Amino acid sequence: MSKLPDIKTNFAEWYQEIVQQADLADHAPVRGCIVIKPYATAIWENIQSMLDARIKATGHQNALFPLLIPQSFIAKEAKHIEGFAPELAIVTHGGGKELEEPLVVRPTSETMIHYMFAQWIKSYRDLPLKINQWGNVMRWEKRPRPFLRTTEFYWQEGHTAHETLQEAEQEVLMMLAEFVNFAQNVLAIPVITGRKTKSEQFAGAEATYTFEGFMLDGKALQMGTSHLLSQNFAKSFEMRFQNKDGVMEYPHLTSWCGCTTRLIGAIIACHGDQKGLILPPQIAPIQVVIVPIFKNEDQKALVLKKAFELENILKQAGVRVFVDQKEDTPGAKYYHWELKGVPLRLELGPRDIEQNVATASLRTRDKKQAFAFDSLVTLVQDALQCVHHDLFVRAQERYAQQWNKIEKLDKFGNLLQDKAGIYQAGWCQSGQCETLLKDFQGSIRCIIDSQDFKECFACSMPSQGDVIIGKSY
Amino acid sequence: MSKLPDIKTNFAEWYQEIVQQADLADHAPVRGCIVIKPYATAIWENIQSMLDARIKATGHQNALFPLLIPQSFIAKEAKHIEGFAPELAIVTHGGGKELEEPLVVRPTSETMIHYMFAQWIKSYRDLPLKINQWGNVMRWEKRPRPFLRTTEFYWQEGHTAHETLQEAEQEVLMMLAEFVNFAQNVLAIPVITGRKTKSEQFAGAEATYTFEGFMLDGKALQMGTSHLLSQNFAKSFEMRFQNKDGVMEYPHLTSWCGCTTRLIGAIIACHGDQKGLILPPQIAPIQVVIVPIFKNEDQKALVLKKAFELENILKQAGVRVFVDQKEDTPGAKYYHWELKGVPLRLELGPRDIEQNVATASLRTRDKKQAFAFDSLVTLVQDALQCVHHDLFVRAQERYAQQWNKIEKLDKFGNLLQDKAGIYQAGWCQSGQCETLLKDFQGSIRCIIDSQDFKECFACSMPSQGDVIIGKSY
Repeated sequence: MSKLPDIKTNFAEWYQEIVQQADLADHAPVRGCIVIKPYATAIWENIQSMLDARIKATGHQNALFPLLIPQSFIAKEAKHIEGFAPELAIVTHGGGKELEEPLVVRPTSETMIHYMFAQWIKSYRDLPLKINQWGNVMRWEKRPRPFLRTTEFYWQEGHTAHETLQEAEQEVLMMLAEFVNFAQNVLAIPVITGRKTKSEQFAGAEATYTFEGFMLDGKALQMGTSHLLSQNFAKSFEMRFQNKDGVMEYPHLTSWCGCTTRLIGAIIACHGDQKGLILPPQIAPIQVVIVPIFKNEDQKALVLKKAFELENILKQAGVRVFVDQKEDTPGAKYYHWELKGVPLRLELGPRDIEQNVATASLRTRDKKQAFAFDSLVTLVQDALQCVHHDLFVRAQERYAQQWNKIEKLDKFGNLLQDKAGIYQAGWCQSGQCETLLKDFQGSIRCIIDSQDFKECFACSMPSQGDVIIGKSY
Repeated sequence: MSKLPDIKTNFAEWYQEIVQQADLADHAPVRGCIVIKPYATAIWENIQSMLDARIKATGHQNALFPLLIPQSFIAKEAKHIEGFAPELAIVTHGGGKELEEPLVVRPTSETMIHYMFAQWIKSYRDLPLKINQWGNVMRWEKRPRPFLRTTEFYWQEGHTAHETLQEAEQEVLMMLAEFVNFAQNVLAIPVITGRKTKSEQFAGAEATYTFEGFMLDGKALQMGTSHLLSQNFAKSFEMRFQNKDGVMEYPHLTSWCGCTTRLIGAIIACHGDQKGLILPPQIAPIQVVIVPIFKNEDQKALVLKKAFELENILKQAGVRVFVDQKEDTPGAKYYHWELKGVPLRLELGPRDIEQNVATASLRTRDKKQAFAFDSLVTLVQDALQCVHHDLFVRAQERYAQQWNKIEKLDKFGNLLQDKAGIYQAGWCQSGQCETLLKDFQGSIRCIIDSQDFKECFACSMPSQGDVIIGKSY
């Protein structure tokens, strides 16, 4: 294990290195793909189970649709095929024969799910239909980066059908709010929400809402999106229902994805520090590590006995705790678990036991604290909340520093190019002005609900509302 | 909703029809694939989470490996490619270009995982390595049948590496025992365990252990397998470790799969009856349905209030309970929930409430029972255990009836062909005799730990041990 590259001056290498050293992922022998190793898989399972509960609580049911989609399906919605064609993996042979029609490894499942919805939806009584799917998808990736951009990734995709446009719009915004809440209150990542511009919205959507996180290097990460789909999707698959008046209508569709394995990348790139990862406590596979400290066999027996006792007490309170019994120095263990981002460490030596305390060290704080055995559960739970709070506040403060409000592109263009960050400005809503950002490797991340600027950042036309501009991953 | 086909005389149609009527799955527009609908997905999630806990408790960690495998990997182990070649789906194009090397949609992940193991295993200190993966796999299926045989299916696959052959053998048998325990104590399906014959074992294995269930129609279903792999797999990927004496050695590998979406098919085909599904309580998405009964609005208010009260009490005790408020007759509701296989129904009318009871109906029993409100939780939990017990005992009794011990193939061959069942006989262990079973659509399901017969079922050679012969799905 070598020292991590400097996180401030060499973030890209720090990121690659922490992925290796914290044993999160390995390169796979397939271009653009990774192996998600046990520690990161455990993070993913925690994210998944917590978000799954929220998806179910908002009235959605999980289902499983096929991995492979007939190529003709993708072509049914004109903008959809235009957007996805360059990224597809295509199965041409199956069962020893060339297929009559090639099959596409799903890049997303709108077309397959809409085909099925068209069979299932006959009447307004079948609506709303609210389905979610957890699975793997594939988009050929030119610039792969572990978790942030991989050819295969895991995600959830929600797909719903509604009687009215208004109901569909409500769904889109409800799920956006749910995901934003999850990002901030579970992952401790502050996000900026808004609408995507026409050029950045989902291939075939009427409107795409996004929530974007900004990482330590100032780059923007699209963490999830919620789409109001155009009725073209329903029309392409002849999905119609009889409304209450007996008239045939096209339902209004939504789709949303608030959670992919990219979120593991977001956690790394938003919260890390020079020592390594810092995991938000709610999704940390190990929330508390207990490090026994002893100088001889007698002390070892005493300390380990107490360590297991505390482990049991914490386990019963639902805390994910691990006693590190490896034969190694305490210092090496501190280093290891700091690298792995465990939120709370409890050191336990003979002197601690004498005083009925464990010496606690929060991953976000320098000063150690003494946790009394008789209120251990409460103290540990509070400390975990505290680490969450520290992470969120720290990131918010960083956002404030990274946030620039500069009127004109000719003023902030070079700055953006040199130093990624959050750039707020006005915009006339023309694609022409938007395109100018490419010269500075920037793009409009979203149109936000704010109007601090009167004029477009590029031309002299009036601004139609503020936008957040950034450099994306 | 039409009447189900007769389960005794027309099982195959009954099966297809219950899959539709209970809303478990739908045909997908890709040959051999199905859409797993929400009710069956919920069953799968329950199976998955319960088995996942057991896999973790036995010291394994989950990880996620790529979906696509370079075609050359599959060819590295000679028997492996021979076994899987005819079933592969092959990706030839990606990102708009023809690939230099085609990629195979994983039919199983031995080759990919062994490639990675070879990078990770350097020393005996890295062993044992005990990994499990949940995911989708694909094997081109000629005779698809929902859940039982589908081109794409979901499963878990365990892969482990050990220092010694003995340790690997222990792992293989431990996981077999774990899965058998799960099948019997969670799914209520009695199973017969044993070794597969050379011709039926996993492509590239040294030994394959299986657990087989026998369905209502007498057919055998391979529910899961545990393999001791030949060292060829380690050799193919040059997976070597330095042992304690500093000598380079090949590790001993295992793989095991005790759980696929096929298990949903097993539940349908093992426990169903003329009324529909019967779900083993531990994996039933709805364990208890409460049906309110009333004749007027006053009664409705009273009954619903009590129904929600009971729902809350049961929920807090961890019972999965649903109050059916649909506008429908109680009779229609009984019919619906019996079809869906809900283990326990509580009917709740004004008279029940007067007497402080709910009228309970176990899905496996005819006689109704009165459950006193003040011991509701205990009564419900007991009733659920009771349904599990009924299912298991009923299946065991059926196995006893389906079990035939007949010495010679010329005596049982026609019987087997006409009427699938469990046929126990002796075997000389020659492939030639084994092949004769094909004339009667039979095969050796497994070699069991019993020696009731002296002679082979086909020739006059001495038996090397008894085998179970059956017709498989």
